[in-house]
Amino acid sequence: MKGVLAAALTPMRPDLTVDRAAFAAHCRRLLDAGCHGLAIFGTTGEANSLSLIERIDAWEALVADGIPAEALLPGTGACALPDAVRLTQSALALGTPGVLALPPFYYKGVSDDGLFRFFAELIERVGDDRLRLFLYHIPPMAQVGFTPELIGRLLDAYPGTIAGTKDSEGDPARIEAVCKEFPNLTVFAGSERFLLDTLRWGGDGCISATVNVTARQTRGVYDLYAAGEDADAAQAALTEARRFLEGYPAIPALKAIMRDRTDDDVWLNLRPPLDALDERRTGELLARLNAPS
Amino acid sequence: MKGVLAAALTPMRPDLTVDRAAFAAHCRRLLDAGCHGLAIFGTTGEANSLSLIERIDAWEALVADGIPAEALLPGTGACALPDAVRLTQSALALGTPGVLALPPFYYKGVSDDGLFRFFAELIERVGDDRLRLFLYHIPPMAQVGFTPELIGRLLDAYPGTIAGTKDSEGDPARIEAVCKEFPNLTVFAGSERFLLDTLRWGGDGCISATVNVTARQTRGVYDLYAAGEDADAAQAALTEARRFLEGYPAIPALKAIMRDRTDDDVWLNLRPPLDALDERRTGELLARLNAPS
Repeated sequence: MKGVLAAALTPMRPDLTVDRAAFAAHCRRLLDAGCHGLAIFGTTGEANSLSLIERIDAWEALVADGIPAEALLPGTGACALPDAVRLTQSALALGTPGVLALPPFYYKGVSDDGLFRFFAELIERVGDDRLRLFLYHIPPMAQVGFTPELIGRLLDAYPGTIAGTKDSEGDPARIEAVCKEFPNLTVFAGSERFLLDTLRWGGDGCISATVNVTARQTRGVYDLYAAGEDADAAQAALTEARRFLEGYPAIPALKAIMRDRTDDDVWLNLRPPLDALDERRTGELLARLNAPS
Repeated sequence: MKGVLAAALTPMRPDLTVDRAAFAAHCRRLLDAGCHGLAIFGTTGEANSLSLIERIDAWEALVADGIPAEALLPGTGACALPDAVRLTQSALALGTPGVLALPPFYYKGVSDDGLFRFFAELIERVGDDRLRLFLYHIPPMAQVGFTPELIGRLLDAYPGTIAGTKDSEGDPARIEAVCKEFPNLTVFAGSERFLLDTLRWGGDGCISATVNVTARQTRGVYDLYAAGEDADAAQAALTEARRFLEGYPAIPALKAIMRDRTDDDVWLNLRPPLDALDERRTGELLARLNAPS
């Protein structure tokens, strides 16, 4: 699992259930646009706003609808250990090449010992040699994160299982440090802004919300780097596209753009506590986005 | 539902499952020590470290084991709307006089509109006139909280359903403001430090973690105030007891004290990411707590 991954949006019906057909169509579109894989049911996918059963049903349906399990990196972290175990077992049964696990995020100021124990229990209760765990570091949202010391302890204890990390702290110096300290870890930047830098530091790609709408451009940067060509100008343009999107609340803005691109009102629905972008800001966003440059 | 409520601890076996017999015994002890009620499966009860089914099974067992449902205020908030609906329906079926609901706590910086919509959907999906909802405001842990404006909007929209609040922000000025702005709301301070002040401001009691070990003393302050007697000296002693306990991590310290008082090792187990108090700090805590004053 490496390269360009979209943190896929989850389309929902007006009653707030997952729209299975629209979800499969969106995932297919992202793969066709060049994504190497899809991080489904992460922060962008409103995973924590859905019940366990809703998530499990939705990813089983996605594979039944023809999205290859090999392209999926589902989010399986949870505050409760039994929930994380069950989600992880379900993803393994589906045949995904890995899972992306948030730390338990309700209690704040917890110790590395406590977090180590959570992941040790998770790995041992799942008890499956096929498990490849990607550590989802996103302190702006989860507040709880993975220190480099904790990553090192987990790698030492479970070298075959701890496969990688997604780093969404927003600090490129941290991504560089993790790439260099753990050369065998698959490191994804949490934003395509840091894609080229991450690849140069020995990392492996990016997993990003905004790749829902920048997939082709992001893949372009990856391919130039992989081919040994000059990718700086392409990265600069990609960074500019990302910076523009950062001026809006991510999930509402991305859903508003998908509504515009697909003409499908399914994209207007967000689970509370998230709100759809209001009409005024939607109009402004689309006008700026679609303006000839 | 008013007076002195313990945010009850949840005793767990070495395999981290809830110890049903020890839980019922602990709840019985708290009621015998003078608690008017028990806020089970809140922050102190490690609720978010347990799956939905574990929580539902445990509170059904508690009532089957003789703890009156009328004394229970279970925690039923969740990040996912369907989970909050299911927990709330289960508590209603059990016959509890109310439920204590966290806001959805994964996404940060969410709007009052989004939170209003979450609770409106919760109330409407539960669709039961018996529902009495207590809003659990604990920004130090959940990060997301209830502004007075949001409380007012919910009260206006659902006056028969929004019954009260537990305020664990730690700011007495906020408790005073909420008591005075919403005289018909049942207001619980989140700490027995503020019990007497809260009663004087027109509030109704406290729901507190440390009441697991201060129940008798906290009830004493409440009874003095209710009898119109001078409660200041008793409150000052209670505040001192609470301040002492605040020097330690709450749940590990309270479990260490319960281990000491009951001689039952079931109190040594905490679900990760929480850790038991280490031997050195446990020894120090107990030596100071049990020292003749």
